[in-house]
Amino acid sequence: MLAAIGAGAAGTALGVAAGAAVASERNEADVQRQDGPVPFWGGHQAGIATAAQDRLHLATFDVVSERRADVRELLRAWTAAAASMTQGGPAGAPAPNALLPPTDTGEATGLAPGNLTVTFGVGPSLFAHDGQDRFGIAARRPPALIDLPAFAGDELDPTRTGGDVVVQACSDDPQVAFHAVRNLGRIGRGVVVPRWSQMGFGRTSSTTRAQVTPRNLMGFKDGTNNLRGDDPGAMDTNVWVGAEGPAWMRGGSYMVTRRIRILVEVWDRANLDDQQQTIGREKDNGAPLGRQAEFDAVPLGERGSDGKPVVPVDAHIRLAAPSTNDGVSILRRGYSFTDGIDPVTGQLDAGLFFICFQRDPRTQFVPLQHRLASSDALNEYIKHVGSGIFAVPPGAQPGGFVGESLFD
Amino acid sequence: MLAAIGAGAAGTALGVAAGAAVASERNEADVQRQDGPVPFWGGHQAGIATAAQDRLHLATFDVVSERRADVRELLRAWTAAAASMTQGGPAGAPAPNALLPPTDTGEATGLAPGNLTVTFGVGPSLFAHDGQDRFGIAARRPPALIDLPAFAGDELDPTRTGGDVVVQACSDDPQVAFHAVRNLGRIGRGVVVPRWSQMGFGRTSSTTRAQVTPRNLMGFKDGTNNLRGDDPGAMDTNVWVGAEGPAWMRGGSYMVTRRIRILVEVWDRANLDDQQQTIGREKDNGAPLGRQAEFDAVPLGERGSDGKPVVPVDAHIRLAAPSTNDGVSILRRGYSFTDGIDPVTGQLDAGLFFICFQRDPRTQFVPLQHRLASSDALNEYIKHVGSGIFAVPPGAQPGGFVGESLFD
Repeated sequence: MLAAIGAGAAGTALGVAAGAAVASERNEADVQRQDGPVPFWGGHQAGIATAAQDRLHLATFDVVSERRADVRELLRAWTAAAASMTQGGPAGAPAPNALLPPTDTGEATGLAPGNLTVTFGVGPSLFAHDGQDRFGIAARRPPALIDLPAFAGDELDPTRTGGDVVVQACSDDPQVAFHAVRNLGRIGRGVVVPRWSQMGFGRTSSTTRAQVTPRNLMGFKDGTNNLRGDDPGAMDTNVWVGAEGPAWMRGGSYMVTRRIRILVEVWDRANLDDQQQTIGREKDNGAPLGRQAEFDAVPLGERGSDGKPVVPVDAHIRLAAPSTNDGVSILRRGYSFTDGIDPVTGQLDAGLFFICFQRDPRTQFVPLQHRLASSDALNEYIKHVGSGIFAVPPGAQPGGFVGESLFD
Repeated sequence: MLAAIGAGAAGTALGVAAGAAVASERNEADVQRQDGPVPFWGGHQAGIATAAQDRLHLATFDVVSERRADVRELLRAWTAAAASMTQGGPAGAPAPNALLPPTDTGEATGLAPGNLTVTFGVGPSLFAHDGQDRFGIAARRPPALIDLPAFAGDELDPTRTGGDVVVQACSDDPQVAFHAVRNLGRIGRGVVVPRWSQMGFGRTSSTTRAQVTPRNLMGFKDGTNNLRGDDPGAMDTNVWVGAEGPAWMRGGSYMVTRRIRILVEVWDRANLDDQQQTIGREKDNGAPLGRQAEFDAVPLGERGSDGKPVVPVDAHIRLAAPSTNDGVSILRRGYSFTDGIDPVTGQLDAGLFFICFQRDPRTQFVPLQHRLASSDALNEYIKHVGSGIFAVPPGAQPGGFVGESLFD
């Protein structure tokens, strides 16, 4: 009992020395801040290739209207509101008088948008629900928008899984991200109902070369070898839908979300060596095992003097590496989360809200996750408890709206 | 259905004009950032008078050990770890080798502390639990540390109420605040178990004159007439325990927390006029009704041409005003929160995590809350679902620890 306290108490002497090292690594908001808002209109929706913002608010909704025109109109209204909010504007034009409800809920008034992006997607259930083609679009469902298969170890909670539509809002200010999703939910009332939502308090991926690699809740640098949004060749190859997709999806992408709970209490009791063997990297500087620096190539073929692979056969970075997966790469864009203490177990409900984008989940996320689910050493410490898959249409031009051509 | 969409669509034209107005009001992180970390040691614990940081992670714990020495030792270890983390250091001195678990979980490594403060308090149940004086301190329970009475309309969830000890971590970076509480929980393992915790994504109070008044999730400026931590006279009168308290509490304070859910969907349907009459202020600029500017005195005695009070008799700011409450003032230091969609109702679980500090809850929070609970127009839109009360000891000096004199 209290084995850690000796070490903790020694911390009194650490403040100054450790504090001095802090400034050198990053102050995220400074690194991130751009000269102006992230443009909303364009060939791709923002929020995919965009440098990952610090905070997330993501929600899925189910359509309760049975009218195709309502869904189309909702996408039009959502696009308009998102276009305004991402530029620092309100969700709607001011109401003509005070006897009407405000057209913006107000909690982001006066806040800079903090690189706000709003990204929309549609789930399989929008195309057919209980076998019913509610909106006359069943034939337009892209083959790549599969129902995700079951993976080994899945413990999915239906109240945190699925959704007819998804809204991903990312901003360096969480109140701005909250506000965006809330107002879209308000605008959609009567047509959609919220299904589930997730706040994420810390990005776990870099998506441009300029970003410092963040740390996840396991304390490790995460996303070192992620795809980069500012590498157009890699994005075209791995993320953006091309001529193979239906016309309404070209320039779009497929998003998979997984709510991955980390068994924090178990992980925190694992020794440093175990943690590093599990991930395949040094915890301190992020270097692959057997190497010196974070961005050194992972020595997958190398063996130590004991004849064993330097990077263990079940290490996470080995099993997730493109070279282990026929070259498969995905763009990861996830966030750390916590939703408090689980009142049943008394354990912290925290982890990684995994988000990835890809050109075709059938050849990217699915085989990758089958491999991880069956063999990853990390499985001892994590549990997949929520899931979603969505077709993310291309961007829109002023006068148009996201998803328009799906309903043409 | 979709009544709001016309307005939403008109938002396309709003981006530039509205965006231009943004920079003038605030960019919180810039306003907040100090030259260095907030000092940990001192006569008062930090995190009370400290300028309210942007983000919160608060947790309560129950003691599972029955040994007085364990509790005392835990407070000592927690103090040491907090002293280090608030200065940007790790939670503990590095473990001597990799076959031991790390003494810091690592997710804040490389992050600036963002004005991190860690504030400790003890609840009534630490002094006596089921009538048992577990730690020999029952006689030291301050009379002011009452069990809160039931208030009209309370719908308290026991899994979000109470706790033997509380840890409030505030930082401008939520990952830093998360990390602090997580590591204290880790250090306490075997002595305490987590009871409940709460992330808060946006401050709802100013606690210094330099801070811009933030907006709550009702979209209104909140805390305009709050006490200010940089007003020592007001703090001495209303917040810091003086000679009336037991020696171990002098220079300390009493914290009350209330998890106040806002019925967002109902509020968002209320018209602007109703919202303003409910609060007693203009939504746009925060001016009291009948006045022009945010900091104008609230005209509680004034009547309009219709003979009715300009600030309605049941308006929130009237009922909460010191002049309506025999001069009672409290220091509010709350945060907006969301914990996602309630799977039962499909409604957003969001609101205000109210935190206040005061010299004596019996004469401050309790009568104030009785008045609000019985008469506040706001009650139509809110629900108190969690509650806590804690004695927050004075600060500590290097070599000592918070709460030391409680266990002398």
